[in-house]
Amino acid sequence: MSATALSELVTDGFGLDHLPYGSVSDGDGAPHLAVRIGDHAVLVRDLLDSEDPAELRDAADAPNLDRLLAAGEDAWTALRALLRDRVAHRSAPARAITDVVLHMPFTVADYVDFYASEHHASNVGKLFRPGQPALLPNWKHLPVGYHGRAGTIGIGSEIARPHGLRPEPDGVPSFGPSRRLDIELEVGFVLGGSAPEGRLNLDEAAGHVFGVVLMNDWSARDIQAYEYVPLGPNLGKSFATSIAPWITPLQALEAARVAPPSRDTPLSSYLDDEASAPWGLDLLLEVELNGEVVARPPFSSTYWTAPQMIAHMTVNGASLRPGDFIAGGTVSGPERGQRGSFLELSWGGEEPLRLADGSTRTFLEDGDRVVLRGVAVADGESHIRLAECDGRIIASA
Amino acid sequence: MSATALSELVTDGFGLDHLPYGSVSDGDGAPHLAVRIGDHAVLVRDLLDSEDPAELRDAADAPNLDRLLAAGEDAWTALRALLRDRVAHRSAPARAITDVVLHMPFTVADYVDFYASEHHASNVGKLFRPGQPALLPNWKHLPVGYHGRAGTIGIGSEIARPHGLRPEPDGVPSFGPSRRLDIELEVGFVLGGSAPEGRLNLDEAAGHVFGVVLMNDWSARDIQAYEYVPLGPNLGKSFATSIAPWITPLQALEAARVAPPSRDTPLSSYLDDEASAPWGLDLLLEVELNGEVVARPPFSSTYWTAPQMIAHMTVNGASLRPGDFIAGGTVSGPERGQRGSFLELSWGGEEPLRLADGSTRTFLEDGDRVVLRGVAVADGESHIRLAECDGRIIASA
Repeated sequence: MSATALSELVTDGFGLDHLPYGSVSDGDGAPHLAVRIGDHAVLVRDLLDSEDPAELRDAADAPNLDRLLAAGEDAWTALRALLRDRVAHRSAPARAITDVVLHMPFTVADYVDFYASEHHASNVGKLFRPGQPALLPNWKHLPVGYHGRAGTIGIGSEIARPHGLRPEPDGVPSFGPSRRLDIELEVGFVLGGSAPEGRLNLDEAAGHVFGVVLMNDWSARDIQAYEYVPLGPNLGKSFATSIAPWITPLQALEAARVAPPSRDTPLSSYLDDEASAPWGLDLLLEVELNGEVVARPPFSSTYWTAPQMIAHMTVNGASLRPGDFIAGGTVSGPERGQRGSFLELSWGGEEPLRLADGSTRTFLEDGDRVVLRGVAVADGESHIRLAECDGRIIASA
Repeated sequence: MSATALSELVTDGFGLDHLPYGSVSDGDGAPHLAVRIGDHAVLVRDLLDSEDPAELRDAADAPNLDRLLAAGEDAWTALRALLRDRVAHRSAPARAITDVVLHMPFTVADYVDFYASEHHASNVGKLFRPGQPALLPNWKHLPVGYHGRAGTIGIGSEIARPHGLRPEPDGVPSFGPSRRLDIELEVGFVLGGSAPEGRLNLDEAAGHVFGVVLMNDWSARDIQAYEYVPLGPNLGKSFATSIAPWITPLQALEAARVAPPSRDTPLSSYLDDEASAPWGLDLLLEVELNGEVVARPPFSSTYWTAPQMIAHMTVNGASLRPGDFIAGGTVSGPERGQRGSFLELSWGGEEPLRLADGSTRTFLEDGDRVVLRGVAVADGESHIRLAECDGRIIASA
């Protein structure tokens, strides 16, 4: 493969200021860590020189992000500075993304999904506990979350409709394919660095966030509804969680930082972010169903920030590991068109969504394709386009 | 180190019919996979010959069980047969367990904790939902479970009392050390083998169970009570989960197989074990607090079996990985002295346990030491002693 002047590959949203990381191979060979420039992938090791620091060369000469995640924040900064310089000024072999095989960009250690959107939590409360307060008493005091299945997080785009036990009016559950298969549009955070044992304060927590990725937390609402008391979601979620194949470095999103929503309930000191640098992110997100945009949730409306989630996760002394992955749960804004799940968009299935082709939708049908998109907004303009998270439902026996 | 005739090392409970696996080092050097004979550790690689199958030599020449877990059931059987023969007839270097450093015996992939004891679930129901049916409607239709934190499972014996948000009468939680720190006596199952995608039936599921280990699912009841709606336990559990450092091969427990309790509710076909080989285990367990036995829970009273939990985990298409770890939740029998948690033993703290030294106990105090023990019973005799799970509570700042 001949070398290409890398600066010429830049496209809108995937330029020098972005450089997301992924894992690519030619199908037969071993996967390698790569950066994306426009619609091309360039191996990170092809951009480093023998006189570059050994730690960075070691992290670059890897199948995926795992070594870089372990190396910690200083290495993330150093490698990014170096890549930006080289991409601006050098040529290197580049392959069209459509010509490579994409692999999972990192090995997931533990995965914790939170419930950080006030509008989402309120919608769910109204749907399932009508006549009661929309938020449970603990919701504004801590970021509620649960551990999900790390082993079924992937970048694959075919999602088999799960089977399981579904509630029935007579109280005896029936076994079969989910009848209420849903999406959850989420923003995931990839963590790294070597954390000391013991709790992290908000500043320390922020230093463990390596990158950001769009995520679809596929959810079988009927299976979930039957199983979830009293220990939370399990089979209704564990069949598959999709992430986009390219991880946006947090440092690419500095200009999109905004203040989170104002806190109307006093927080315990380990969660109190009033004196901290603002850690909301102005990401405009989009849910596309079969080519039609059906929702535009604003991530900036999310109540709990990533550092708050991490400070909470570790306040009991639990350790972090490189590759830990957290997400904030469904992103929903205050408007109907800003809801990040079909549960909310169709109001529990009671108000079917009318699509442009005249059909209606409550939950997902076999063959439905859902693409999640997002752009980061800074100074009124978007220079960063998050990689798409793309999935299609297939029937399963 | 000189070689010892291994058959002379055998003690009651850790003989030729047991041979649990662990990971040991001399502290400075690398850890190695080992078997336990009596109170001694012998490296597995010291028992294999160059003409033994390459797959077994590869699994033996490893720091821990990870490669053997991946190799699958046939390899487990072959290696065990070979080790039994060699231990019976050979000499090899052996080190007293007190002279080696013990390491985590395998890398935990995903960890799922179930709620499989009917007596435990009923006790919890009576405590938290007085006046209502003790079991929730779903309990006898599926094994309820949730994903726990894999990264904080360990063999360490010092457990720092966790801090967190505790419920208060005025509705505003307070931050501080848990006031209701508890144990959960559990039996864990280490899984392995390469599973095809898609659901496993009960027989296939059974073939993925490599071994059994005593486990203490330390639980901060106050933190858990405040956080757990609606997504289940998180910080109340994630600070630490202890397992014993030696994994008993399932094949050592064949003679302890018993039928599980009779099922009074018809089961969906993927969970129906009426025609299956009995998969209960006759394990007599013991909770010792500061040298005094305070409970003797019988594992044979557990309603859901390991194959049922695995068949359930995969019925939605979720894949297994070698190193997946599941447990059945607190083991409690029908009698008061058979309860596997202080929550139950002290009936929610209302009926303090009177100890032999005249003191009382509701939940754990700093300095308390809890040792979990178990023996497998076959034909009225116990030949297998599960390795102890030992932990002590220390104060934390």
